[in-house]
Amino acid sequence: MRSKTRAYSLGLDFGTNSVRALVVDVASGQEISTAVVNYPSGQAGILLDPKDPNLARQNPADYLESMVKVVRQVLSRAKKSRKGFSPEQVIGIGLDTTGSTPLPVDENGLPLAFHQEFKKNLNAQAWLWKDHTAFAEAQEITALAAREHPEYLAKCGGVYSSEWFFSKILHCRRVDPEVFEAAYTWVECADFLPAIITGNLAPSKMKRSRCAAGHKAMFNRDWGGLPARDFLSRLDPRLGELRDRLYDQTNTSDQVAGYLTRSWAKMLGLKPGIPVAVGAFDAHLGAVGAGVAPGKFVKIIGTSTCDICVWPNDQPLADIPGLCGIVDGSVLPGYYGLEAGQSAVGDIFNWFVNYIVGPKKGSHEELTRKAAALLPGESGLLALDWNNGNRTILVDQRLTGLLLGQTLHTRPEEIYLALIEGTAFGALTIIKRFQEYGVEIKEVINCGGIAEKNPLVMQIYADIFGLEMKVARSSQTCALGSAMAGAVVAGKAAGGYDRFEEAQAAMCGVKPESFKPRPEHHRVYQDLYRLYRELHDAFGTRTWNGHLYHLMKDLLDIRDRQLDKARKVAKSRTGNKK
Amino acid sequence: MRSKTRAYSLGLDFGTNSVRALVVDVASGQEISTAVVNYPSGQAGILLDPKDPNLARQNPADYLESMVKVVRQVLSRAKKSRKGFSPEQVIGIGLDTTGSTPLPVDENGLPLAFHQEFKKNLNAQAWLWKDHTAFAEAQEITALAAREHPEYLAKCGGVYSSEWFFSKILHCRRVDPEVFEAAYTWVECADFLPAIITGNLAPSKMKRSRCAAGHKAMFNRDWGGLPARDFLSRLDPRLGELRDRLYDQTNTSDQVAGYLTRSWAKMLGLKPGIPVAVGAFDAHLGAVGAGVAPGKFVKIIGTSTCDICVWPNDQPLADIPGLCGIVDGSVLPGYYGLEAGQSAVGDIFNWFVNYIVGPKKGSHEELTRKAAALLPGESGLLALDWNNGNRTILVDQRLTGLLLGQTLHTRPEEIYLALIEGTAFGALTIIKRFQEYGVEIKEVINCGGIAEKNPLVMQIYADIFGLEMKVARSSQTCALGSAMAGAVVAGKAAGGYDRFEEAQAAMCGVKPESFKPRPEHHRVYQDLYRLYRELHDAFGTRTWNGHLYHLMKDLLDIRDRQLDKARKVAKSRTGNKK
Repeated sequence: MRSKTRAYSLGLDFGTNSVRALVVDVASGQEISTAVVNYPSGQAGILLDPKDPNLARQNPADYLESMVKVVRQVLSRAKKSRKGFSPEQVIGIGLDTTGSTPLPVDENGLPLAFHQEFKKNLNAQAWLWKDHTAFAEAQEITALAAREHPEYLAKCGGVYSSEWFFSKILHCRRVDPEVFEAAYTWVECADFLPAIITGNLAPSKMKRSRCAAGHKAMFNRDWGGLPARDFLSRLDPRLGELRDRLYDQTNTSDQVAGYLTRSWAKMLGLKPGIPVAVGAFDAHLGAVGAGVAPGKFVKIIGTSTCDICVWPNDQPLADIPGLCGIVDGSVLPGYYGLEAGQSAVGDIFNWFVNYIVGPKKGSHEELTRKAAALLPGESGLLALDWNNGNRTILVDQRLTGLLLGQTLHTRPEEIYLALIEGTAFGALTIIKRFQEYGVEIKEVINCGGIAEKNPLVMQIYADIFGLEMKVARSSQTCALGSAMAGAVVAGKAAGGYDRFEEAQAAMCGVKPESFKPRPEHHRVYQDLYRLYRELHDAFGTRTWNGHLYHLMKDLLDIRDRQLDKARKVAKSRTGNKK
Repeated sequence: MRSKTRAYSLGLDFGTNSVRALVVDVASGQEISTAVVNYPSGQAGILLDPKDPNLARQNPADYLESMVKVVRQVLSRAKKSRKGFSPEQVIGIGLDTTGSTPLPVDENGLPLAFHQEFKKNLNAQAWLWKDHTAFAEAQEITALAAREHPEYLAKCGGVYSSEWFFSKILHCRRVDPEVFEAAYTWVECADFLPAIITGNLAPSKMKRSRCAAGHKAMFNRDWGGLPARDFLSRLDPRLGELRDRLYDQTNTSDQVAGYLTRSWAKMLGLKPGIPVAVGAFDAHLGAVGAGVAPGKFVKIIGTSTCDICVWPNDQPLADIPGLCGIVDGSVLPGYYGLEAGQSAVGDIFNWFVNYIVGPKKGSHEELTRKAAALLPGESGLLALDWNNGNRTILVDQRLTGLLLGQTLHTRPEEIYLALIEGTAFGALTIIKRFQEYGVEIKEVINCGGIAEKNPLVMQIYADIFGLEMKVARSSQTCALGSAMAGAVVAGKAAGGYDRFEEAQAAMCGVKPESFKPRPEHHRVYQDLYRLYRELHDAFGTRTWNGHLYHLMKDLLDIRDRQLDKARKVAKSRTGNKK
């Protein structure tokens, strides 16, 4: 029977609101079945604090409960969609998660959140990537590193983020010492999930993700792994002590995190003992699933954007300023994984359509149709794409949007187009930064919702970059990348692959239609990009004679003071009513 | 009988689309009746050329026909609204018009448009103020004056406009020599209307408006009236020859243009022989009707804004750069009339509501209500008010709008407020320019649609200026100012006044409610104004290190090239279809 010889891999993509599962035919990359299960807790899977808009946590039990559901669903669908499919043919599992999403665990590696006493404590849950409660600690870490260990910052764009591992742990130490003290250690979600299903939860056995450690915890072999104990002690003596209970070794996703335990195999409906790959972040395995390779730049374009490329780790590479991270092996073993990104792309279009124009007046479809009829520059508009700050290359959250060139005749579709162009100019600025530092970019492979759904955006990006834009064949490259990791840890002998490159050659590709730059449009966009770059430098850098750098910051300072005032007034009013 | 002793004056306000008439009780300023008649020709009274968006003309016959209708209507209403009113009690007439709205006339002062052969020729009609066909000629006049007679420009803001008298005449000479040659001379609409109803149409008898001549035709006693013959000849020899058939004398609106002829009296239903004042522009007589006086700054706020103040002509006054005009007697005799303005105010709010947000999502009322709940600076937004260029103080049409500070949370009402604030900052920049040059401004009197209808705008202007904002009592200050001119030319003996100041004391005032600055808001707005001013100087001046001055211009250049391209493509497509 033909199906006997088939081998499948399971990819699990733990996102912000849901987990997706994908069963892939290892030989062809064909996606046999997929399933999505939403996390049950909180608001769309996120635990919020009405008093603190910066807080975003997740219940780690959600991951397990949803994983069981989604795997059973995807296997049952696979049986229906492919005759002869059997869960026995699944040879490996890969997992990717959001990050940095650390959680405090006990000596056995079990989340404190699973202990009755901490069950309802938000600080004992998983601290979701988009939690910004630790903004002060991030500044503190950045300041100390800048003074004493600038090399730590050189690999992560010069600024340590409030979203990252040590900021969150230090913040927990400050606001909830009880949780901090009860935690034996902290693990990334990407470490926790492969560990629990392979029975390697004990901190001594748990395989830590190179991707998570390198991009979010300043882990680097150059300085012997994590930041020095002394450095962490300077932030807080107890943080220094914690370092001894963290890790010195990390692993790339071609490594086995362990083998599926009997009990988990039963719960999931899979064969026990199959290998599970070391976890990594969604964007990084997503890039693998999109076909990232030297010269192939992957853009994951959704509400925000993640840009990933790789560079052979035996070739010299400078510290590229402004990148969110340069981490050996975070994407593909043997290569530096280079990560950049834009804080908002689709979110900007959504903001304009949903909040400003109103969906009735101009839907995305209608505005796209009208915008497509405009020539570059015809509107006279130019936009900066900083409505949510600038991640790369400025690494500055305190930047805001700018729209220039409005007349009394300016139409919504013209603004919509200018916003698309603004995000493309922002993306080009990232590409140019890579190129300036010697990273070759020969083609761009796009994936994510916008790449899939909006050909106008892709065409304009092609016109603005002057590069052909390809779109990844898979519409779920993260889960596909995870499944590829599953195929790699299974190895050739089991019907999988020995290396990611082999898995990529067999399992991923691009769609037949691509978007080629239109030379006339590209010429005009080159002029417009020069103007964009001037605005960018004027408002976003101190190097440009510096006269306007303070403007957005001053406006935000005034805003923050006024919002404080408004809150106090509102509070005193509520108080009076009582 | 009490009504026997009453004296009334008739004000006629010839606007862009209609003429308004107002009968005013001379003693009290009480407005007895009003009427409006729309011009019958073209589109809302404007003759357009589908092939040239810059063209805007009016049929001079419209003025006469509509005047007859509106006067008959206003008199009939006066009879109904005041017992005992008789048209016999109307002691004088004043007229104001738009400008510069010149028309070519024959040797008898009759419009060429009244001749059968020119009836349908657009160039033989009145060239409405907003006609911009003469943009090239305006540049030519500006360039020549800058080289040879900078003093001409010093009184009109440094740039001679395409909207003005000589630009239009020179353009006519270039594009329609037949009309130019057939014209004995050219007259402003403000000259023509008083002349025709007083039988003083013959160019030798026609009284020319100081206001029109000074603000639009570079007329100034300092250089002997109109620009030198030689200067005009350099532009075109025939223009130099025309100067001899123009005028050397001009008059203020306290002067009699003539006395109502028997035939016009009959048509209008008035007493023959009553005096008619020399005409002036709407804004200037509007300022009179609003109570302009030294220290009292009048703002007429509508789709655009006109700012008027006066300064005693026996006191020194510098040439204030950027003003549209400094003309002795253009507003009140014995005072320099100083005119400034903003190219768009209400138009910007209308653009945002009608074109961007859409009236269904956020009406002016709804956005105003929500914006009123915001604190200054709370939105983090800052806008430049240049969607239609900047009239004062930059005198630059090639400027565009700018909005700064958008986030993903920015709401339409925040943008609406930022646009209001932007226009207020623009207005404050004008006020500061006056003050820098020694013109005292103690209070601001507002009139026009927005001043009447939008208290939020008035309050924000008060908060931003740090000055009390008053609103003129009359909602038709232009027609009222004209009626006051009628009362002044009638004189005290006839029941009127000998001077405008006396007429103002009796006939105009402000509404009881005014808008006082809120000190806390003013403080925040002072900070925001500093930021506005930086943006203003960065994008609007060459003096500010100049790095960004070119940006809006470059965008407009690219836009114009692309629009040209689009037009050519469209044309070739149409051509192919044929």
